[in-house]
Amino acid sequence: MNDRIDLVEESFMQTEEARLNEFVQLLHSNQHERLAEQLAATRAQDIAFLLMELEEADRFAAFKHLPQERRADVFSHIDKSQQLALLASWNDDDKRVVLSNLLPDDLTDLLEALPKEQVEHLLRLLPQKAMRRAMTLLGYPADSAGRLMTPDYFAVKADQTIGEALEAIRNQTDRYETVNTIFVVDDNQLLVNMIPLRRFVSGAPEDSVSTLIKDEESLVTIGVSADEAEAVRIMRHYDLSVLPVVDPGNHLLGIVTVDDVLDVAEEEATEDFQRMGAVGHGDDGSGLFNISLRDARPSLLYRKRIGWLLILVFVNVFGGAAIAQFEDAIEALVVLVFFLPLVIDSGGNAGTQSATLMVRALATGDVKLSNWLKLFTKELSVAAALGITMAVAVAAVGLWRGGMEVALVVAISMILVVVVGSLIGMLLPFIFTRIKLDPATASGPLITSIADLSGIVMYFSVATAILNL
Amino acid sequence: MNDRIDLVEESFMQTEEARLNEFVQLLHSNQHERLAEQLAATRAQDIAFLLMELEEADRFAAFKHLPQERRADVFSHIDKSQQLALLASWNDDDKRVVLSNLLPDDLTDLLEALPKEQVEHLLRLLPQKAMRRAMTLLGYPADSAGRLMTPDYFAVKADQTIGEALEAIRNQTDRYETVNTIFVVDDNQLLVNMIPLRRFVSGAPEDSVSTLIKDEESLVTIGVSADEAEAVRIMRHYDLSVLPVVDPGNHLLGIVTVDDVLDVAEEEATEDFQRMGAVGHGDDGSGLFNISLRDARPSLLYRKRIGWLLILVFVNVFGGAAIAQFEDAIEALVVLVFFLPLVIDSGGNAGTQSATLMVRALATGDVKLSNWLKLFTKELSVAAALGITMAVAVAAVGLWRGGMEVALVVAISMILVVVVGSLIGMLLPFIFTRIKLDPATASGPLITSIADLSGIVMYFSVATAILNL
Repeated sequence: MNDRIDLVEESFMQTEEARLNEFVQLLHSNQHERLAEQLAATRAQDIAFLLMELEEADRFAAFKHLPQERRADVFSHIDKSQQLALLASWNDDDKRVVLSNLLPDDLTDLLEALPKEQVEHLLRLLPQKAMRRAMTLLGYPADSAGRLMTPDYFAVKADQTIGEALEAIRNQTDRYETVNTIFVVDDNQLLVNMIPLRRFVSGAPEDSVSTLIKDEESLVTIGVSADEAEAVRIMRHYDLSVLPVVDPGNHLLGIVTVDDVLDVAEEEATEDFQRMGAVGHGDDGSGLFNISLRDARPSLLYRKRIGWLLILVFVNVFGGAAIAQFEDAIEALVVLVFFLPLVIDSGGNAGTQSATLMVRALATGDVKLSNWLKLFTKELSVAAALGITMAVAVAAVGLWRGGMEVALVVAISMILVVVVGSLIGMLLPFIFTRIKLDPATASGPLITSIADLSGIVMYFSVATAILNL
Repeated sequence: MNDRIDLVEESFMQTEEARLNEFVQLLHSNQHERLAEQLAATRAQDIAFLLMELEEADRFAAFKHLPQERRADVFSHIDKSQQLALLASWNDDDKRVVLSNLLPDDLTDLLEALPKEQVEHLLRLLPQKAMRRAMTLLGYPADSAGRLMTPDYFAVKADQTIGEALEAIRNQTDRYETVNTIFVVDDNQLLVNMIPLRRFVSGAPEDSVSTLIKDEESLVTIGVSADEAEAVRIMRHYDLSVLPVVDPGNHLLGIVTVDDVLDVAEEEATEDFQRMGAVGHGDDGSGLFNISLRDARPSLLYRKRIGWLLILVFVNVFGGAAIAQFEDAIEALVVLVFFLPLVIDSGGNAGTQSATLMVRALATGDVKLSNWLKLFTKELSVAAALGITMAVAVAAVGLWRGGMEVALVVAISMILVVVVGSLIGMLLPFIFTRIKLDPATASGPLITSIADLSGIVMYFSVATAILNL
């Protein structure tokens, strides 16, 4: 499987590389006509991809070669950090051209990354209607369905005929051409149901729209303030390609589409990933939630990492202090130090495994808070089996390095350390969820440091007890 | 934000809990009619969800209460491990009812988890046509676009009129009612393009279908043997809700839909997550690639974890051997051991951070193999800054516990350990990709163990040099 991925990636990279080189050459040799031709034949997403690979100065120049009507589309596919840089390089006219043509959800996505004064300035560049709409969308909580949705949906009345509805669909602008789901509202604009376009095509024109609604189809909606992660869960659960967003009175406010959801799912996975690796996440003042590693400045990476490293230093100072308690034992039998990395790392490793499984299972909904007791029991049996296997493995090393008694110390310590480490790794994500922290805060490094600390105490306690040190 | 998630989850869980209790009660009190009513009013996905929460015996019984025509739909939404258990509880007639009504991609998904003899037996239960189709799909490589696709698509000829095409669309069965994209093929069945249904609705009936194709729309396809992860990347890149799968001659073989892609994206993220946590992944003989932590037997969890734990023991034996080289230094100055967890864990922590950022960036395509040198330079500057900060923090502790010289040893070691740990964490995912291993194999525990080993050597080397031990 890996062979195949690699081949695909390499061929993709080669064509991309070739295209990039040609593009840069056209740009540098000022062949504006050929450049325009090439851009016209390229999809917006691919242009965005090319632009992101360019040096900053080239990127700014290349963007100016795009026809005005395509700029917003291309801009919406560029990474956030580069969007902000491009925006900062423009005068107000350039900004107006792009911003007033962005789709409402893409505009919201951009504005929420900017400081308040800038947002106010940019909003004033927009036409009245677009400005009011943007302000409404920005009024919804961060990471909510309201921020994610677009208010561009297409609705018909339940008591219209199918023929009238089709006529209305035909008269819509091209903007809606990919809208495949038609929403049905009643006279008070309350959402009644959603119907695939295909069913309109097959219906009898003189029948009422309401005849197209099937009995068993209960309507699935999401509240405008619900978390965007909930939208992902609902759309995946029901295999929806579009999800209506409603206010508490069930008025249709907008729709979340599946391409937004794919992006949210990736962002959520990245967040959890980074938390598990003890890399800081969330708003760190940069206005960027998901940094691109390729584009991030070293100073940003430094800020995202130093916090946890320093916190963990202090956990490890306790580890050192624990060792200091056993200095006499160490002086008496220095061979004990030989097994220190072996014994304590195993606890951290087993704990990291447990935490990883648990954090992911909580994130995907495989496991719930209420399952903890059942999982605890299972974890205990798995950890005991792992600990015993590990004990047998290290007892051999113990015999070779320190004789019978040391082998016994190492084996017993190993069982304790693996079991305790696993249970810490399993429980911490639950405890964090309970106290309303993200379970992924139970990162590998945190689990490792805590397991190390408890491992040191257990190892030397067992040693002093058995060896009478 | 976490408050909100929590509220949503709790309310979701409460309704679910209530529904589950009612369901179990109806089932146990043999109220078949009310049970049938409740099931009829519930979506297939929700029935599947209820079933998965039941005890096994109840689940088997409840499934029998479903009308035959809904069984396949509900079955397709149940987790793989429970699907296999249900299947094993049925006679051939029960199996035939479900299997012959499964969508082709769901059937493939189930069959690929079963041993060869069972697949052969099940295939013989299917109607001729469905059997041949399933065998074709199973002939594509594992994890390929061909395994993921469904051959249920709707195609019209380029030289038909729009009116004829719409007539053909109307005459299709309900099965295609959510098909919103119409494929256009030429006389040799070669794929020409894909057109949203909405454009047919707006077109003039007497025009030819080919007039609906817009100039700038180059067709995006995926080869039938390409990796399914590539399908995710393409659909996310171009914001597609459906992706045509073609053979090398550009004949349309089937389509991948966005709901499949959401599942693949989640599976891929889970795979990477578990690899990063040093939990074994891939086919371990259980036939299940993505285990459910809730349902997994302890023996399966044990097998998935013990491998890496044992491998890491041997890395740590080298750590112990390194310490043994410095036994004299330790005996001379036992306070050195106090700083051992502090110094060596910091290297592992910094390395885990780097590896996490790098593995995720490689997985999302943010970073490519060719970027390694630029990233190496950046990592070096970030790591140096982190190391210096950490050195200042621990020098204070060093002064307090061991005086000026020890503080110097600890500070210098800390810089070295953080820089070397970070570089290991950054480079290993690249090296693994290069030698065609999954980059996520550079798990936190592996990085920690390697960083520990190098940290021990560096720490004691610095100590012996500066303190003349």
